[in-house]
Amino acid sequence: MKALIEEFEKVLGKDNVFQDEADLATYSYDAAVLDPVLPSLVLRPTSSEALGKVVGMCNEHALPLTVRGAGTNLSGGTIPKSGGVVLLTNALNRILEINEEDLYAVVEPGVVTAKFAAAVEAKGLFYPPDPGSQAVSTLGGNVAENAGGLRGLRYGVTRDYVMGLEFFDANGELVKAGARTVKCVTGYNLGGIMVGSEGTLGVFDKIILKLIPMPPARKAMMAIFNDINKASETVSAIIANRIVPVTLEFMDNFTIRAVEDFSHAGLPVEAAALLLIEVDGHPVQVEEDAEKVESLCRRLGAMSIRVARDATERDKVWEARRAALSALSRIKPTTVLEDATVPRSRVPAMIRSIEGIAREFNLTIGTFGHAGDGNLHPTILTDRRNHQEWERVEKAIESIFDRALSLGGTLSGEHGIGMAKSRFMEKETSRATIVYSRRIKAALDPKNILNPGKIIGD
Amino acid sequence: MKALIEEFEKVLGKDNVFQDEADLATYSYDAAVLDPVLPSLVLRPTSSEALGKVVGMCNEHALPLTVRGAGTNLSGGTIPKSGGVVLLTNALNRILEINEEDLYAVVEPGVVTAKFAAAVEAKGLFYPPDPGSQAVSTLGGNVAENAGGLRGLRYGVTRDYVMGLEFFDANGELVKAGARTVKCVTGYNLGGIMVGSEGTLGVFDKIILKLIPMPPARKAMMAIFNDINKASETVSAIIANRIVPVTLEFMDNFTIRAVEDFSHAGLPVEAAALLLIEVDGHPVQVEEDAEKVESLCRRLGAMSIRVARDATERDKVWEARRAALSALSRIKPTTVLEDATVPRSRVPAMIRSIEGIAREFNLTIGTFGHAGDGNLHPTILTDRRNHQEWERVEKAIESIFDRALSLGGTLSGEHGIGMAKSRFMEKETSRATIVYSRRIKAALDPKNILNPGKIIGD
Repeated sequence: MKALIEEFEKVLGKDNVFQDEADLATYSYDAAVLDPVLPSLVLRPTSSEALGKVVGMCNEHALPLTVRGAGTNLSGGTIPKSGGVVLLTNALNRILEINEEDLYAVVEPGVVTAKFAAAVEAKGLFYPPDPGSQAVSTLGGNVAENAGGLRGLRYGVTRDYVMGLEFFDANGELVKAGARTVKCVTGYNLGGIMVGSEGTLGVFDKIILKLIPMPPARKAMMAIFNDINKASETVSAIIANRIVPVTLEFMDNFTIRAVEDFSHAGLPVEAAALLLIEVDGHPVQVEEDAEKVESLCRRLGAMSIRVARDATERDKVWEARRAALSALSRIKPTTVLEDATVPRSRVPAMIRSIEGIAREFNLTIGTFGHAGDGNLHPTILTDRRNHQEWERVEKAIESIFDRALSLGGTLSGEHGIGMAKSRFMEKETSRATIVYSRRIKAALDPKNILNPGKIIGD
Repeated sequence: MKALIEEFEKVLGKDNVFQDEADLATYSYDAAVLDPVLPSLVLRPTSSEALGKVVGMCNEHALPLTVRGAGTNLSGGTIPKSGGVVLLTNALNRILEINEEDLYAVVEPGVVTAKFAAAVEAKGLFYPPDPGSQAVSTLGGNVAENAGGLRGLRYGVTRDYVMGLEFFDANGELVKAGARTVKCVTGYNLGGIMVGSEGTLGVFDKIILKLIPMPPARKAMMAIFNDINKASETVSAIIANRIVPVTLEFMDNFTIRAVEDFSHAGLPVEAAALLLIEVDGHPVQVEEDAEKVESLCRRLGAMSIRVARDATERDKVWEARRAALSALSRIKPTTVLEDATVPRSRVPAMIRSIEGIAREFNLTIGTFGHAGDGNLHPTILTDRRNHQEWERVEKAIESIFDRALSLGGTLSGEHGIGMAKSRFMEKETSRATIVYSRRIKAALDPKNILNPGKIIGD
């Protein structure tokens, strides 16, 4: 190992090879509720060339390699293998190109999502994916996890914006997928399989992202309900009326109280549920859609509706929504943020089921999330050290999965499978799907060095 | 073989196993300019169960298997292996579900694209991908080829609408990818790699497609130019002005004359070039965008602009455009429809280069295509029996590829690699990309029965 460390130092410089205990501990966990695992080494390449070399060296020495952006992962995707290497992308953080004529950008994997979105917006363009962690998350991490966010309903997820990728395979050889053009069918759609592959099939070097023109107008509103069913039924009624808002978020009473306690944003703490809705587009269309949404909300039983009068009020609405997870996680030591997703029309049934599961297992569950695309985040507040309660938590999680699947949904909308959910995958797919996936992994990474154990298990 | 044929007859019924010479000849070629190859057997499964069984049987007997929808493929993707099996999907043609609340549809692979689009439109919804062959092409073929079309500029390509897939692997086992939800990160994005894999990685059983609300208004216009450069420069000016039309098509003088001869649609045969443009959305936005486009066209030198006054006039514009290939192919015995694609802003340079290449190799090339997304179709009119000319054609094709790549483009925007272009793939990607792709193929199809020889060669 000592000789190898010297080799890494030669390639990366001494300053970019970390082996102090404190450094190793820092990169031993992520945002998932899972035990930390210590790597043996943390590496920080500062150039594309060094990145490729390091990958090849890890492969040569059969050293497990976990790439880490900001470590905001919620399913253990960035927890390293014991004794393995953590590879940091934070020095690979250049926006290489924002092409205004051809509506694409080329970035390195360590660029922070929100910084990129702001740089794009400064040119009148729009990069829609906005995962909850966007203030710190990296685009490389977003692509590896196929990150979603609040705008998935209208604008899709990260997958829908990856036009091309350059990545290093397990040998450190450069593979090129996709192009700078909307249309490209040259070879397998390798970008397609890399998106959401959680670092198990290659290490991103450059990412080509699709941009769209910034919509000229937007309008946000908050609909207040005294009945949770009425709120959830309004969600599907809006879509069924052929209105596709940018964002259509749901918060239950528990979450509303937690957020209000935390942020004092003036939320109605007596409400059974809130819908936070934003529409965008041409100003005339925005006015019309907003009116339609408002009248639908009223028709379906909203007690009142607050329309944001300006950008400040609008931002306040979204800040409150974005505070939900932080607010909830203050309440108890352990926060389990779940991610089961159902077709939009099944949101009312799913919300009722979550309430039932909370009662059945005697747990505190706050539910909020992207109701418009069926992606709910039932959040279990607990204390992992309480073994009895933790057993009930695990059963409740499995019940949530089962219910989502029985409603035609999926185990994970946007948080990934990682280590947390891989044993449940067969429930949703099939034995053959796991075998098929494992064949791909074994063929592309025969020494199993690329983030081993994630998605398809060991 | 005789015993195996009896087995196939047992599974499929005698009526669905074809071995007459005429039948074999019918399925020996597709729309690419390549020599026909006779299969030994043509099979027509009528159920999902039979489909899976047949795939497993082919694998057991190491019998090469080429799935065929309508055979409109332009790169040899549906030309079978000599002595292999052609598997027809035309009896697997049910639309299983159009879900208006959750905005998705589930279809069998043999559903005809245009029929599906019409069924969706009847419910006020929209399935945008519209490949040139949509009147006969199948959705299974579209997914296998990642088909594009005229609306790629605003609405993307087939890839952007595949939410999920069920497919049989080489053993005939059912693999499930994706979901009925916009967000799904359960396991590898297998739907991503299946799209555009040209039947080499699995056999589609069911396809889940995303639908969107039908835009309430649209407007089409034709801009007439006496200078081909002015036309092509207008293309990038429109996009640079943050207008993303549904469709932005280009036709050169040669193509205009051919179409007019063929369809008598009243096209201006003296024009150096035409742009056919359609905008859609909210009626107010459509009016504004149409005005902006019109004034941009005039500013950049259009001689005149004809705006379609109603749906009939609009349809006439698009019928004329859709007739381009048929019109051109009447002129000489062999029509080579190329597919090189460049970033939109490089369209003027690419069009000039194609003119230069036509002169250099003394060939007749008509150019038309989806200029708005950089996807041009330079069409070489020739006679393959003229060996001297054919040599020049092959050199011209390679020059077109080289030029597209040097402009930051791609070998193929929407026609696929198939057998026609696999030897050029490394030019665009890298040796490692081919190796990576071959590893996937070998792992998933160890006996190489699934449409062998396509994309990555043999």
